[in-house]
Amino acid sequence: MYSVGKNKEKWLQDALELYQGRLSSQIKLKFIWSKNSNQLLKFLENEKKIICFDPVGFSFTSEKFSSYLFKALEEGGTQLALVIGEAQGLPEALKKHPAISLSKMVFTHQMARLIVAEQIYRALAIKEGLPYHLS
Amino acid sequence: MYSVGKNKEKWLQDALELYQGRLSSQIKLKFIWSKNSNQLLKFLENEKKIICFDPVGFSFTSEKFSSYLFKALEEGGTQLALVIGEAQGLPEALKKHPAISLSKMVFTHQMARLIVAEQIYRALAIKEGLPYHLS
Repeated sequence: MYSVGKNKEKWLQDALELYQGRLSSQIKLKFIWSKNSNQLLKFLENEKKIICFDPVGFSFTSEKFSSYLFKALEEGGTQLALVIGEAQGLPEALKKHPAISLSKMVFTHQMARLIVAEQIYRALAIKEGLPYHLS
Repeated sequence: MYSVGKNKEKWLQDALELYQGRLSSQIKLKFIWSKNSNQLLKFLENEKKIICFDPVGFSFTSEKFSSYLFKALEEGGTQLALVIGEAQGLPEALKKHPAISLSKMVFTHQMARLIVAEQIYRALAIKEGLPYHLS
C-alpha cells in the first residue's frame, strides 16, 4: 500500500501492524511511504497492477470490493499496488488506473490506510466465508 | 457517541483520546458503550436529539456533514447523541431518527467510532475555516 507522507502516529502503527499480523498467513501487506508525488510515481514504475483510492472513484460495497480485489490480485500475478490519494487528488499520471472511493467524506491518509487494511482483511473473510464480516 | 459492545483495543483508545483532546476546547466528546440494544435504548431515553450512523443512511460529503452537525447541535440545545449502528442494523425504535452513512462498505464499530470522531474534528475545522480539512 503506497501513500505520500509519513506515519507519525503510534496508534496507527499499532493498528496497521494488527491487520498485517491477521493477514500474514495469506496476504503479505506492506506499507510504503513516499516523500512526494514524484517519488510515489518512481516507486510505482515497476508495479504491474495498480488500484488507487480517491474520493472521485467508484464506491463499492465490501462484498464487491472483495471480488474486485481478488480478481485484481490474480491479474497482477498475486501482486497488487494500492495507492492512497492525497487531499489535493491523485497525480495526473495515475488517473488511467482504476480508482475506488471509500466514502464521499474526506478522510486523513492515516485513516484511509487503516480502512483499506481492514477492508482487505474483510475481503478475505468474505471470500472464505468467515464469520468476521457479519459479526 | 453511543455504540454497542466494548472497546478492547489499545490503539483505538489512544486514537479516540487524541481526537477528544483536539476537540476539548470546543466540543466535549464522550464515548458510551452499552452491552446490548436494550441498554442502548435505555441510555438514549433522555437524549433530545439523536443522529444514527448506519450503512443505509444518507451519504454526506464532509462539508455537508459539518453544516448538518452544527445545525443538529443547535437543535439539541448544544447536546447531541450520535449512535453507531450494529452490523445487523439499528434497533427498530431508532429508525425514526435521521441516519448518516459513512460508506457503502461495512466498517467495524471500532473503525466507525474513530471515523466519526475524526469527522467531527474535520467538521469543526470546516466551520472555522481552519486549514486542517485541506491538508
